[in-house]
Amino acid sequence: MQKNEFSPKYSTNSTNNEFIARHIGPRDEDIQLMLKELGFSSLEEMANQIVPQKIRTTKPYPVVGNGISENDLLENLKKTLSKNKVLKSLIGLGFSDTITPPVIQRNILENPVWYTAYTPYQAEIAQGRLEALLNFQTMIIELTGMQISNSSLLDEGSAAAEAMVMAHSIHKEGHVTHFVVSPKMHPHVIEVLQTRAEPLGLKMLLQDPHTYDFKSPVFAAFVQYPDTEGVIEDQRSMTDKMHAHGALVVTAVDLLSLTMLTPPGEWGADIVVGNSQRFGVPLGFGGPHAAFLATKDDYKRIMPGRIVGVSVDNHGKPALRLALQTREQHIRREKATSNICTAQVLLANMASMYAVFHGPTGLKKIAQRIHRLTGILAEGLKKLNFEVPTNPHFDTLKIPTNKVFEILKAGESLNINFRAYPDAVGVALNETTDLQTVNDIFTAFSLGQKVPFTATEIDSTLNLSWPSELVRTSKYLTHEVFNSHHSEAEITRYIHRLQNKDITLTHSMIPLGSCTMKLNATTELVPVSWPEINKIHPFAPTSQIEGYIEMIHDLENKLCDITGFAGVSLQPNSGAQGEYAGLLVIRKYFLAKGEAHRNICLIPSSAHGTNPASAALAGMKVIVVNCDSQGNVEVTDLKAKAEAHKKDLAALMITYPSTHGVFEESIKEICQIVHDNGGQVYMDGANMNALVGLCRPAEFGADVSHMNLHKTFAIPHGGGGPGVGPIGVREHLKQYLPTSSLQPAAGPKTGISATTSGPWGSASILPISWSYITMMGAEGLKRATLVAILNANYIAKKLTPHFPVVYKGKEGLVAHECILDLRDIKKASGIDVTDVAKRLMDYGFHAPTMSWPVVGTLMVEPTESEPKAELDRFIKAMISIRNEIKEVETGKWNIKDNPLVNSPHTAETLLKTEWSHDYSREQAAYPVPWLRENKIWPAVGRIDNVYGDRNLVCSCPSIESYR
Amino acid sequence: MQKNEFSPKYSTNSTNNEFIARHIGPRDEDIQLMLKELGFSSLEEMANQIVPQKIRTTKPYPVVGNGISENDLLENLKKTLSKNKVLKSLIGLGFSDTITPPVIQRNILENPVWYTAYTPYQAEIAQGRLEALLNFQTMIIELTGMQISNSSLLDEGSAAAEAMVMAHSIHKEGHVTHFVVSPKMHPHVIEVLQTRAEPLGLKMLLQDPHTYDFKSPVFAAFVQYPDTEGVIEDQRSMTDKMHAHGALVVTAVDLLSLTMLTPPGEWGADIVVGNSQRFGVPLGFGGPHAAFLATKDDYKRIMPGRIVGVSVDNHGKPALRLALQTREQHIRREKATSNICTAQVLLANMASMYAVFHGPTGLKKIAQRIHRLTGILAEGLKKLNFEVPTNPHFDTLKIPTNKVFEILKAGESLNINFRAYPDAVGVALNETTDLQTVNDIFTAFSLGQKVPFTATEIDSTLNLSWPSELVRTSKYLTHEVFNSHHSEAEITRYIHRLQNKDITLTHSMIPLGSCTMKLNATTELVPVSWPEINKIHPFAPTSQIEGYIEMIHDLENKLCDITGFAGVSLQPNSGAQGEYAGLLVIRKYFLAKGEAHRNICLIPSSAHGTNPASAALAGMKVIVVNCDSQGNVEVTDLKAKAEAHKKDLAALMITYPSTHGVFEESIKEICQIVHDNGGQVYMDGANMNALVGLCRPAEFGADVSHMNLHKTFAIPHGGGGPGVGPIGVREHLKQYLPTSSLQPAAGPKTGISATTSGPWGSASILPISWSYITMMGAEGLKRATLVAILNANYIAKKLTPHFPVVYKGKEGLVAHECILDLRDIKKASGIDVTDVAKRLMDYGFHAPTMSWPVVGTLMVEPTESEPKAELDRFIKAMISIRNEIKEVETGKWNIKDNPLVNSPHTAETLLKTEWSHDYSREQAAYPVPWLRENKIWPAVGRIDNVYGDRNLVCSCPSIESYR
Repeated sequence: MQKNEFSPKYSTNSTNNEFIARHIGPRDEDIQLMLKELGFSSLEEMANQIVPQKIRTTKPYPVVGNGISENDLLENLKKTLSKNKVLKSLIGLGFSDTITPPVIQRNILENPVWYTAYTPYQAEIAQGRLEALLNFQTMIIELTGMQISNSSLLDEGSAAAEAMVMAHSIHKEGHVTHFVVSPKMHPHVIEVLQTRAEPLGLKMLLQDPHTYDFKSPVFAAFVQYPDTEGVIEDQRSMTDKMHAHGALVVTAVDLLSLTMLTPPGEWGADIVVGNSQRFGVPLGFGGPHAAFLATKDDYKRIMPGRIVGVSVDNHGKPALRLALQTREQHIRREKATSNICTAQVLLANMASMYAVFHGPTGLKKIAQRIHRLTGILAEGLKKLNFEVPTNPHFDTLKIPTNKVFEILKAGESLNINFRAYPDAVGVALNETTDLQTVNDIFTAFSLGQKVPFTATEIDSTLNLSWPSELVRTSKYLTHEVFNSHHSEAEITRYIHRLQNKDITLTHSMIPLGSCTMKLNATTELVPVSWPEINKIHPFAPTSQIEGYIEMIHDLENKLCDITGFAGVSLQPNSGAQGEYAGLLVIRKYFLAKGEAHRNICLIPSSAHGTNPASAALAGMKVIVVNCDSQGNVEVTDLKAKAEAHKKDLAALMITYPSTHGVFEESIKEICQIVHDNGGQVYMDGANMNALVGLCRPAEFGADVSHMNLHKTFAIPHGGGGPGVGPIGVREHLKQYLPTSSLQPAAGPKTGISATTSGPWGSASILPISWSYITMMGAEGLKRATLVAILNANYIAKKLTPHFPVVYKGKEGLVAHECILDLRDIKKASGIDVTDVAKRLMDYGFHAPTMSWPVVGTLMVEPTESEPKAELDRFIKAMISIRNEIKEVETGKWNIKDNPLVNSPHTAETLLKTEWSHDYSREQAAYPVPWLRENKIWPAVGRIDNVYGDRNLVCSCPSIESYR
Repeated sequence: MQKNEFSPKYSTNSTNNEFIARHIGPRDEDIQLMLKELGFSSLEEMANQIVPQKIRTTKPYPVVGNGISENDLLENLKKTLSKNKVLKSLIGLGFSDTITPPVIQRNILENPVWYTAYTPYQAEIAQGRLEALLNFQTMIIELTGMQISNSSLLDEGSAAAEAMVMAHSIHKEGHVTHFVVSPKMHPHVIEVLQTRAEPLGLKMLLQDPHTYDFKSPVFAAFVQYPDTEGVIEDQRSMTDKMHAHGALVVTAVDLLSLTMLTPPGEWGADIVVGNSQRFGVPLGFGGPHAAFLATKDDYKRIMPGRIVGVSVDNHGKPALRLALQTREQHIRREKATSNICTAQVLLANMASMYAVFHGPTGLKKIAQRIHRLTGILAEGLKKLNFEVPTNPHFDTLKIPTNKVFEILKAGESLNINFRAYPDAVGVALNETTDLQTVNDIFTAFSLGQKVPFTATEIDSTLNLSWPSELVRTSKYLTHEVFNSHHSEAEITRYIHRLQNKDITLTHSMIPLGSCTMKLNATTELVPVSWPEINKIHPFAPTSQIEGYIEMIHDLENKLCDITGFAGVSLQPNSGAQGEYAGLLVIRKYFLAKGEAHRNICLIPSSAHGTNPASAALAGMKVIVVNCDSQGNVEVTDLKAKAEAHKKDLAALMITYPSTHGVFEESIKEICQIVHDNGGQVYMDGANMNALVGLCRPAEFGADVSHMNLHKTFAIPHGGGGPGVGPIGVREHLKQYLPTSSLQPAAGPKTGISATTSGPWGSASILPISWSYITMMGAEGLKRATLVAILNANYIAKKLTPHFPVVYKGKEGLVAHECILDLRDIKKASGIDVTDVAKRLMDYGFHAPTMSWPVVGTLMVEPTESEPKAELDRFIKAMISIRNEIKEVETGKWNIKDNPLVNSPHTAETLLKTEWSHDYSREQAAYPVPWLRENKIWPAVGRIDNVYGDRNLVCSCPSIESYR
């Protein structure tokens, strides 16, 4: 019998590194074809031409190591995280356990159509998530009783800080720098306020605003409502007094309590902030959650964050889009009063959908149940001879005792966490609390002794009341959307109806320059839904978070290995927050060195708008450095300015590779100049996707850098957030990394105080990046970078004959993105980048980044995850559009009536009986053949932004308005 | 201070029964409006008019009890299931652990767009799942080397049984009743073959076909390839010999092994069956998984199960649909050779997507890794002085030993299950196995003694080989679809591109009469993904499945409580399997009573087609009972026939409420007649959704009934499966419920032998129904039934002026569905039910059941989950269509060219420059206003079924054919 010997031997370990080919789009054979197209024989050869040799790293990546399979990843992480202990956390402090309706968890949180979407700047293909965000704004407005709300902020602490800066701007007398803050605000809110006030020269007076004597004039008063100890105070007289003294009143609220409690809008608050977490968003060890800021109509133009507004499209149909974009930091740069950029869209959408699902009645029922259980708890503790506060409360009690430790221990043994005060125990109930839990609390407070009564017994006789001025009588959430989707069939269809309006990564590539819309692999997202990740309170005892800490430290170490830095802080919950925290670290470093006067921050003209905004908020003075015609920093100008400000130079902020998508050859020299003049180099890590595995920022001169985990490290954009922007620093700065006074394990004792409410910022999504790095391994990460560069250069090469590619490097090559210049095309044809961007929607694509960093251009970043077939499809679409433009140039089509200026085309407009255009319906809808098999219809036509800003509507419009 | 006392007291227990309002669509106020419309003041009053008093139950539902909240449900079930122990099961027997790629798990298994879809009978709005099924067929065809495959069967055992009946039909000499079955087939396959053969008078010879002496002629030989002990035999000579004797060869195969092994099509097999489970479908304690059957082209018209075929639409565009429908049981009734109806679409789609994701190279790599690890295992066991078989093997070894018990124990302590033979231990490796597991196996076989070598050492030197005639040399999965989607970005977009072609419950109501497309709540589906549910081998030791058993018994008890039966078996994995098993129970009962001659089965003419098919397969003779003009059983005819066949009467099969959607008044009398004549009453439970909580079948006379868990008890239809069809029986039949010889806990010792491979059929989806019942509680279940009846009557009332509603009950009311008569409309206008069904797609709806139970009608079943707003939308659509028909009647529109006969309209056809129809594009696309906001575009135009059946293509067509 002839034997057939199997050869070569099959690997028994072939699962190592197997994820690499799942993450990276082009197959090996595609890569060869593309390299050939560019004239290279290998990725390494290509890299040698593009990445300056002098900054290439030469050391291995021992911490990152080899990649592992998806299956091994999930098994290993589960094992690590099982070291966490999931208790019922009744700690409060603004974080309450909640029940995420499974229909929302599955169809939003775990649905790639929702989480892979980009920020809705291209509104015509984002109507679904814009509607969900409009619902969020409406919900905030109506619950708080205010007039306008943004569509989310990062966390309660930073929302309060935004309110502080805003109130200071609003306050007529700019020289008033004091503000009074109730000591009964949540301590993490006070800490973030303090962190943010100090560099701006604002002075916090920590005392009760109700009794403030106005010896120093103040621009604002801050109160928590109900306060951190659970007490509800009537704020009317305090508010009147503040207003009489020209000060504003800012209040941080508990959203759920406002279903029962007189809303701050009705007692005169000027700005209301808070966290919508308890509306169905998991605790997640502190974040991400959608915070919010609502205010009076008068202040809308100074309100930070994104606002969704209602406008109309070019056919007069109502359409949503981001309103008042001119307020934003990326426009106002160093004059901005906020550096906010990323929002918390995915979480805001979960919270708004929670309100849509429960409706006003359902929400009130939840609040009432919690309040009644709290009343039962108070009554029982009284019976147990505890001194129970007699003031009105909603869900939280502070019980004085000299047995804090014992009660906490007894609670733990019953699977319950309380809040520890030095001389009291705090208990905050939540949606998951039931009578049994209340009985368990009695037992804990009795230190295990038999309790002579039950919660049920108390329930049968108890009457509860509030002073009538505290009781809400006004209606809320009266709009149809909050009153129609209470069965699961309805809410499911509503969610899907919305998602079917949007273009996301599940449809096609999103080639956004600087935004790195790479694959968000399912395996990376899976742990986010695990209870070990999302049921943990941010201030749970350290003994319960071992698994988290292990994963966090491993992620920090891996990021250090990748960047060459000595230390990393994962606290900043957005890129801009990373910039800000990084600059504070530099500031503190100089303070410690006795060089507190160093406050000059050099920023190239090509920088992201957040850079100068962050610098201003960190108390620095911005000096702009010129760039040359290639978008590179003018080294002579830099040198001159660095030397001129030698005495006061604090930092240079520089993006690398440059915002123009080029590896500047002079980066080492630039860093040296800054160091020579006593400054620190802050590297904006937005373009880190072109560096990982090839270069280590710490090796070529950066002292601090933030990394966008939501760009380079695979956290999805969520439709505009969450983001994570950790910072890495060199050894000399390590001791200044951020900490959190409520959770000392979050950073070094000597570090800057907390910049966010959560000690580790958006902790619950850190497993995404950890999983990405762990599965890719060093080999995979390097290959990802090389293929990202390859993909960008392939597109650049293929499109160059049709659109000039500007800002190439010295070899005529780009880094990981390329800029297509349409300025001459506009001159010749009248067609501009907006027309091309909107026309791309007709082709089923999301536009590249428009007019940034250079007006009149499109910046394309394909990322490594896009397969060659998808790149080719995009290239064909762009060439087809170029040919359409030619028809305008040649006069075949009128500049006022052609498929470009009329784009995007909705099915509705194409089906009108009358058709008077020079191009056919088919040309409009199916300019390339694949669209006949896979057409994505824009939900609305081109949106009129001016109309929307002039007629600002920022909450759900009445149904009539649609008619 | 004035106090505001909160009154009434808020319930602290308000979560009880809270799910009811999530499941039921209409709000309380809607229900009042709808009742008013029908002239009732309460649901109870309505029920009294519709449901005959004499069959109403009067007893409470102590086992079902109160409903609980979604959150409590998940917590409780998690607690129960944590009693299961999840070990690595290397038991084999045709069930292998596998890695479900998370991208497939999340985007198919956990995605309501895939799992809430209906069977793709309305092909124009089901092109997505039809393409996935065509991929499944192509995968089976190419891996087995056969010419045609169906698109899944229920399990390997029943697939083999289908092959048996099929082979018997094909065999030229019908009187040959013997067939030879290798004793080395999987024992559960042999058992199901035996169960199915016996009632048909077919005789199994359990002996090696290779050495069969042909003393009795046989119509077929059955072999497992590789066999149950892991051995691979060359089947060529055996096959030639069988063919020479006029017998067919049927083989059950391991699909993964065929990437390396000469496929059966190349050695002459006539029919190939198997289970595709190990292609990414979780073990799930035995099911559901997609089995398959592939055969030669010659036999396609006798092949059981659904076949997807390629045809063209009315514009000549390629389009998929179910082919050769004329073969199906619901057409052939008692002449059918199969009763198969439900398939395993969701699982088939997972398996086919697994092949699309891995591609031919990836699949082979997985197979090769497993095979090499098996080789290492064999080599190591040899070194440990075990007698290792020398025949070629793929992934399974049988190792003789007298220490079976000890090795099994040692394995368990290392978290591994082996297969126990009386004198040997079996080990079957799988995709999750790695070198460490092999080392652990060595340790287990050494009973904990130190093993003097490692798997890695063996790996470094081992060479493996097979006889060359066993080595596959032919290519497979060469089609582009299996070679394009290997990155996660690609596969995600492919899955979403397909799903975006289909209409599912996430889009709109699916008002299918008799099919009960109710809500499949997310919470019910969540546990299906838990490892405690899906990582358990069907033949795991009883000590490891405590949680499962507890949940299963609780579900059985709850179903007994609901139906009044004394016992329930959850084994049947479809409704038709339930019918079959129920009839076998009756058969065995008579056998035990010494009345084996009783074989007459009375079936009303209005019955589901599966009824007579099941009866025929159970060895019964079908006698049809007439129905009157109202669709009710003619009691006089029934009585006459029952009496005429008094001596041989076995059973009556009757659907209640009737297939015409009416509560027959005479049901008790009917049952009595059957009992009086010595027969048993089999109630078809398809319409149980109109009974639950109101009537108990056992109380009004049914002896046996199946319940469709995928209709009445919320298991989703999955695009055409899985289903579960448990049977309930009265006390005297309990001892005959199905069992499984491999798992005695599955049923009583005295029961009928196994009808499915898995002891509890589709065990892993049982939590869905358990959760539904537990959350709804008795109150919720009753209310669901009442609202289902209300919804149906509301639609009937509203549509009566436009479409006559036929087959009402005596009060002019219907049960839970209503039949719209279009026969007169057709006479008047030429427009038929198909036109209306297809036109409904233009309105965004899936059609009701077409021409069943009466040709020329539409049967509408809205279910209780549909909110009033959705019912109103459907009603408006139907009225609008009726008005369109009037335009044809009046001659405004030509009968050959109008929006009805041209429907469904694709965007592509509506956008053509030429438009020559008498109606406008807008009339075609937007006949009602809401479509402008929420349009679902059919992917293809009306499909030509005749063309497709004449030019049968049942695997992926080449790309060229699309051009």
